[in-house]
Amino acid sequence: MVYLTRRERFNSAHRLFKASLTDEENYKIYGKCANPNWHGHNYELFVTVKGEIDVETGVVINLKDLSRIIKDLIIEKVDHKNLNIEVDFLKDKIVSTEIIIIEFWKVLAAEIAKYNAKLHKLKLVETENNYAEYYGEE
Amino acid sequence: MVYLTRRERFNSAHRLFKASLTDEENYKIYGKCANPNWHGHNYELFVTVKGEIDVETGVVINLKDLSRIIKDLIIEKVDHKNLNIEVDFLKDKIVSTEIIIIEFWKVLAAEIAKYNAKLHKLKLVETENNYAEYYGEE
Amino acid sequence: MVYLTRRERFNSAHRLFKASLTDEENYKIYGKCANPNWHGHNYELFVTVKGEIDVETGVVINLKDLSRIIKDLIIEKVDHKNLNIEVDFLKDKIVSTEIIIIEFWKVLAAEIAKYNAKLHKLKLVETENNYAEYYGEE
Amino acid sequence: MVYLTRRERFNSAHRLFKASLTDEENYKIYGKCANPNWHGHNYELFVTVKGEIDVETGVVINLKDLSRIIKDLIIEKVDHKNLNIEVDFLKDKIVSTEIIIIEFWKVLAAEIAKYNAKLHKLKLVETENNYAEYYGEE
Amino acid sequence: MVYLTRRERFNSAHRLFKASLTDEENYKIYGKCANPNWHGHNYELFVTVKGEIDVETGVVINLKDLSRIIKDLIIEKVDHKNLNIEVDFLKDKIVSTEIIIIEFWKVLAAEIAKYNAKLHKLKLVETENNYAEYYGEE
Amino acid sequence: MVYLTRRERFNSAHRLFKASLTDEENYKIYGKCANPNWHGHNYELFVTVKGEIDVETGVVINLKDLSRIIKDLIIEKVDHKNLNIEVDFLKDKIVSTEIIIIEFWKVLAAEIAKYNAKLHKLKLVETENNYAEYYGEE
Repeated sequence: MVYLTRRERFNSAHRLFKASLTDEENYKIYGKCANPNWHGHNYELFVTVKGEIDVETGVVINLKDLSRIIKDLIIEKVDHKNLNIEVDFLKDKIVSTEIIIIEFWKVLAAEIAKYNAKLHKLKLVETENNYAEYYGEE
Repeated sequence: MVYLTRRERFNSAHRLFKASLTDEENYKIYGKCANPNWHGHNYELFVTVKGEIDVETGVVINLKDLSRIIKDLIIEKVDHKNLNIEVDFLKDKIVSTEIIIIEFWKVLAAEIAKYNAKLHKLKLVETENNYAEYYGEE
Repeated sequence: MVYLTRRERFNSAHRLFKASLTDEENYKIYGKCANPNWHGHNYELFVTVKGEIDVETGVVINLKDLSRIIKDLIIEKVDHKNLNIEVDFLKDKIVSTEIIIIEFWKVLAAEIAKYNAKLHKLKLVETENNYAEYYGEE
Repeated sequence: MVYLTRRERFNSAHRLFKASLTDEENYKIYGKCANPNWHGHNYELFVTVKGEIDVETGVVINLKDLSRIIKDLIIEKVDHKNLNIEVDFLKDKIVSTEIIIIEFWKVLAAEIAKYNAKLHKLKLVETENNYAEYYGEE
Repeated sequence: MVYLTRRERFNSAHRLFKASLTDEENYKIYGKCANPNWHGHNYELFVTVKGEIDVETGVVINLKDLSRIIKDLIIEKVDHKNLNIEVDFLKDKIVSTEIIIIEFWKVLAAEIAKYNAKLHKLKLVETENNYAEYYGEE
Repeated sequence: MVYLTRRERFNSAHRLFKASLTDEENYKIYGKCANPNWHGHNYELFVTVKGEIDVETGVVINLKDLSRIIKDLIIEKVDHKNLNIEVDFLKDKIVSTEIIIIEFWKVLAAEIAKYNAKLHKLKLVETENNYAEYYGEE
């Protein structure tokens, strides 16, 4: 049982806010992250899969396959996009790092399961000081 | 003559576009960076000053002063902001890394000159793969 | 159940030694880390909390709160300090990375529990080649 | 129970291929990694041990001992070497990151067990985008 | 006059040696880097161009163009290759970082000059501890 | 004419202060860096030499020689030491990054000149946010 991780990156705009609150209330909760004119980040996504080594190929999953899955299902949809208004699976959600990562999991887990591997962990780095991790735990 | 560098960071939204062009024309020039819904970055700004060591204090410039200058004149105005529409000195400009850095220079140079130092170089890192540098050369 | 991590940094002096041993004996065990004139490090502390996402705010814990807790309870007490002689909760201890991290845990765990989160892991990076991690396991 | 990690680095040549396949078949599976003329990497190996703090010394394991074990048993054998043809414990194996890490585990686990610690995890970073982890799980 | 830098990466095998010397003599000069079975690196290439900002586009050079030039002329030829035996412009040379970078310069300078920019500097990082820089100076 | 850089690291204790001032006065100038009980850093020293490539060996300077020079003349004297009281060439000086780097230059320049190279630049990184550079300019 080995764990294999692939990093992919994307650059997006977003803001933290609840549509049901006033700007002032949003600022109170989220501080400058609530700015209605948006701000943005260079996000780093680390996708860790877990599996046994395929005796034929000597790898758990072909890293090219893993990279392509992440790019097709995630990066294409979020890179150089506005996370709040352009990403179908984030629509009407609060796009905190925590919530983004759970939505990414829903998108990736089934596809990765088609290969010789299981999605084990997602890590989403928002800044050099902040990141979230998710293991599919409810 | 020693060179001293201070790094400060900011997270902003922006897009590359010319107001005089159609969306289609902007996409042709700037690719996905032209997205009208914005994208964003974790920017790193490295400010390098040059000066002689003050015999009284043993430093070129007090790093706390340098940090405060950068924060007051730059970071306060660009952090968690939309570079295209919320920053006075970038208004109506194409906010490429190259142009941002030249406008930062105009803001910083005079203030730093009030201390025992001269602004020598600005380096603005947009992603781990791209950065711009400016030495005040015309 | 999501994991959220905040990094904070501090710069301190310390040495590894036991008061009951001679300098020579300390050098034998700890090598150059036993230097009675001290040495120091740029420490990086990664604090990982675990919790469910608050349906009202969309976050596990407000990162500003988490940052403030770490700064108030840890960074204020250790930054630009001598870990062996100026930090109340490290007094008379061997200030190895392992022991520092356990003492940090004792300080942080109760405070974080007051929020919608549980302290899950501490990681203390001493150099680019060495770090310790603690999960509160006895 | 604390976890302590030591990083060591090595630079090696390798290729991904199965001796039983033709070059064309190997290219189909492994892409450019199958190049018969080799390619190479700056590998980073993170060795995490787990143990209780020795009340006499205040550390889980002396980092100098841990570093020496890794250097003697691993780095000496793989650094500036061809992983496919010069490393006894990798001979006739597919030298994917996953397989290398399992073979490293077999070499390291028994030696570390002689000290006040247990090998907990190996992490082998091949590029800034790819790494494998192993916990000794079958 | 602004400086713009693009980073591209490649993973290659190489060895340091002179064909006119014996293995023993090569080991004496180049140490373990002379290993006849090769070793390898994750190289990082930083290409810095210098130019004036195009008033029409607001950039010195389109980063997509710069990236494509580097990939077409350099990365395609060296990535996952053996630098000593598979790269036409390095053939029969000692492939030290210094010599590689000068040969890269010869390949890149003329192509970049066709755009609104001039090649200013190449930086080639071989390991986290070693790198070479070249400004086209004879 | 190529530039070659070698990085070496050291971990030291220091404080910023002038012996002729009171503690209170020193705090006023240097802030928490004046703490009489010391603090410390993981310093990174980048030594850049400049020279022509030796046609016999294909390198400007053997990196093993460069590394040995830096270790013998600098690292041995400052690593795991107190910069204020244990380093002969820093004695009675204000050990700011700027002054340290100038003193390092005096120690290194003559020795490097004995080889096929000239000391071109020193860069001393004190934290991820601060560094000094020196080119031997008066």
